[in-house]
Amino acid sequence: MAGIDELAARLRAEIGAQRVLTDRQELRTYECDGLAHYKVVPALVALPATAEQVAAVVRACAQTGTPFVARGSGTGLSGGALPHADGVLIVTSQLREIVEIRPEDERAVVQPGVINLQLTKAATPHGYYYAPDPSSQQICSIGGNVAENSGGAHCLKYGFTTHHVTGLEIVTPDGERVRLGGAAPDTPGYDLLGAFVGSEGTLGVATEVTVKLTRLPEAVRTLLAAFRSTDQAGAATSAIIAAGVIPAAVEMMDALAIEAAEAAVRCGYPAGAGAVLIVELDGPQAEVAAQFDEVSALCEASGAFEIRIAADDVERALIWRGRKSAFAAVGRISPDYIVQDGVIPRTALPAVLRRIGEIAAEHGVRVANVFHAGDGNLHPLVLFDDAVPGAAERAETVSGAILDVCIELGGSITGEHGVGADKVRYMPRMFDEADLDTMQLLRCAFDPDGLANPGKVFPTPRLCGEPPGRRQGVHPLHEPDVAEIF
Amino acid sequence: MAGIDELAARLRAEIGAQRVLTDRQELRTYECDGLAHYKVVPALVALPATAEQVAAVVRACAQTGTPFVARGSGTGLSGGALPHADGVLIVTSQLREIVEIRPEDERAVVQPGVINLQLTKAATPHGYYYAPDPSSQQICSIGGNVAENSGGAHCLKYGFTTHHVTGLEIVTPDGERVRLGGAAPDTPGYDLLGAFVGSEGTLGVATEVTVKLTRLPEAVRTLLAAFRSTDQAGAATSAIIAAGVIPAAVEMMDALAIEAAEAAVRCGYPAGAGAVLIVELDGPQAEVAAQFDEVSALCEASGAFEIRIAADDVERALIWRGRKSAFAAVGRISPDYIVQDGVIPRTALPAVLRRIGEIAAEHGVRVANVFHAGDGNLHPLVLFDDAVPGAAERAETVSGAILDVCIELGGSITGEHGVGADKVRYMPRMFDEADLDTMQLLRCAFDPDGLANPGKVFPTPRLCGEPPGRRQGVHPLHEPDVAEIF
Repeated sequence: MAGIDELAARLRAEIGAQRVLTDRQELRTYECDGLAHYKVVPALVALPATAEQVAAVVRACAQTGTPFVARGSGTGLSGGALPHADGVLIVTSQLREIVEIRPEDERAVVQPGVINLQLTKAATPHGYYYAPDPSSQQICSIGGNVAENSGGAHCLKYGFTTHHVTGLEIVTPDGERVRLGGAAPDTPGYDLLGAFVGSEGTLGVATEVTVKLTRLPEAVRTLLAAFRSTDQAGAATSAIIAAGVIPAAVEMMDALAIEAAEAAVRCGYPAGAGAVLIVELDGPQAEVAAQFDEVSALCEASGAFEIRIAADDVERALIWRGRKSAFAAVGRISPDYIVQDGVIPRTALPAVLRRIGEIAAEHGVRVANVFHAGDGNLHPLVLFDDAVPGAAERAETVSGAILDVCIELGGSITGEHGVGADKVRYMPRMFDEADLDTMQLLRCAFDPDGLANPGKVFPTPRLCGEPPGRRQGVHPLHEPDVAEIF
Repeated sequence: MAGIDELAARLRAEIGAQRVLTDRQELRTYECDGLAHYKVVPALVALPATAEQVAAVVRACAQTGTPFVARGSGTGLSGGALPHADGVLIVTSQLREIVEIRPEDERAVVQPGVINLQLTKAATPHGYYYAPDPSSQQICSIGGNVAENSGGAHCLKYGFTTHHVTGLEIVTPDGERVRLGGAAPDTPGYDLLGAFVGSEGTLGVATEVTVKLTRLPEAVRTLLAAFRSTDQAGAATSAIIAAGVIPAAVEMMDALAIEAAEAAVRCGYPAGAGAVLIVELDGPQAEVAAQFDEVSALCEASGAFEIRIAADDVERALIWRGRKSAFAAVGRISPDYIVQDGVIPRTALPAVLRRIGEIAAEHGVRVANVFHAGDGNLHPLVLFDDAVPGAAERAETVSGAILDVCIELGGSITGEHGVGADKVRYMPRMFDEADLDTMQLLRCAFDPDGLANPGKVFPTPRLCGEPPGRRQGVHPLHEPDVAEIF
């Protein structure tokens, strides 16, 4: 590829030779993100260390018509950072400075490569933390969180990444550096900040992120309630929310997820549980104490046969260990698995669990369920053995059927993992043409040449491919070569 | 205007004769919104009763190249609903159905003409309310709230309109009906919902709004603390927030605002106060009780010489009466006044108050200050007598200088009233060209012909007027005739 060689030479001159990788062996390190069954080796990897270097790389891509994909820590679960075979992968992990912690304004300014948990560690001495906490928080980057609008166990009370980002500096797909938002809770003009957060790298690359810091709660209390069935645990969840309590987290695991966690980390959850709920309350001491009694009573009323209350931080960590290890733990009981991500209205929890059970039984596939139950965010883990012919296909069928159930019940095809490469094909099940066209107006406006993370989020771009007519202001989007990506 | 006559005939046929006004006398009713010193009589007023009728009007405008402006109740304070002299004013107040109240999902679906307070009244029997509460909540519409991303006294704790809208049906500027968002807390694809909320009618017209309902708090407690100076009241505000308490509201009034309120509604605030704070706490009984003692102590420590605690709803209403009447009350002590709207970081409160005092003194103008102190949202009321030559200009100068101070201190030119027609000229003080260009990419994508509320929000459209080149995908925006608008 002569084009790539020229681009590599230009980038080596502009950002430094050690920041540009073209060796096939080195490139392979970046062939996938957390969704490891999609693999594409990029043509070039750039490791810029400053915002201006990011802009230089993007400008070079724009001027040469080269597709580019941004990547943080590469922990995403929808293939959003899957490289483009003829494109540049821009890795932002070298931009890892915590620029500023401003407790008096409850704000922090960080570069995109800063690790989620590091920000919390830096804020803690000031009495603050960064609220969004994906399970991968020890390794995932804030830039990646911005791209995917990441959630986490505590998003029930505290919201998603989009609720904690107040300002961004980005590089647009034509290589220009601009600000979106700022430190204030609201700024005049369009809220493009909100559109950028969760745009999965299709509108540009974030180079600096201003976030809200959240005050460390005065008190945190955690309980584990064991139930005979997921129906009972679902009823308890509904009862807690209906009582007007908003816990920091309400997590549910079913029998199979518990079995996996026990095998992996010996979390010692109550024997014979068909489901467990982890309920965490935080806030002022007085509030937490009053609500804790209420939550315990509601769990009992819904059929909990054992309730364990964490007496201290160690016991609290023990309760969480099972939940936090759940995804990886499934590897102990199954050689392969798909982590699905869907959303339903909380009230549909018992219905969706029954439907998942039926679908699994019908196809002879095991499904372990781990939920952010409080906000109806499901993570069914579909187990299979890739060595068994047809098993992967059956698992894929079950996984897709679960999303259909989510849509049917008024939910969504992704709660926090994003669309990425993986769920592009489901978008038309959720949105009609006019909806997708309207969203793509924005993509076309920012990226008329379709170079920023092509093939992700949107199925075949209809709108921009239309002959000039009604939408005459919009330039045709270059058709991404989907076959090449997958 | 032959063009308008033809358009009127078409619209009469499509949506009914009684829904189309062209009589000059009738049109004059709509010549201004809440910012009454800007007046433009529209060429035609349409009063559609259904979403499809709104779409029909917008389509007719798009096909004939006619500018259009949407209007709710017309209570906006930035001239966002100021008509276009050659355009159609689309009044959405006939779309006033509360479509659905769903307490189990904490959602309501309303048409845009529904009055803010009516939604709360409809939700109250179910134990819920609609949190954003502009001072005009008795008459302002949800559609207008969406256009302006309206705030209110309780936005400190509960956030702005954008934090409570989860789904919209809109009519795009080419007359197409599309959905943005939904009932779920987050949906895949771009968050155009967030960009639409607060876009001040420049991206289309909302025809249905899905909002979050908020649970009525178990307890509400309100206190009034009187201080000798605004410095003391500002220090108390900072101390409360620094203590980790997030009150539902922290409102401040200075001596002149108190004088006005006394003259108008005899609210009986403590004599000799240089400033009062109204602090309202809500939430679980236990939390409110504990925090209330803490807030009282912090007010005393900051110099409060009298603290009144509302013993019941009547006393609570009495405390609020002075604050809620403050804008109108200023009319008792001054023939004319400008309601300014700016934001500063909360920590800059004492500094900004001193600077406002200096600016006012320098120009011989009186300024009454009413604040959402908790979130640093200022509403300086600049008093003047239009009968005195030069007084209006001096008031305008002071009003503008206050915004400059807000920007200088890291704040913003509007907290909740919007940019509208009034603050277009301040946008370049806050944003550089690249920032404004990036925002206008969205406007151009949605509205390449520049027909949706032209002349509002953005100063002269730079980007879309550029010769085809870098931004070649974007169609030139028709240059709005600013002179004609003002």
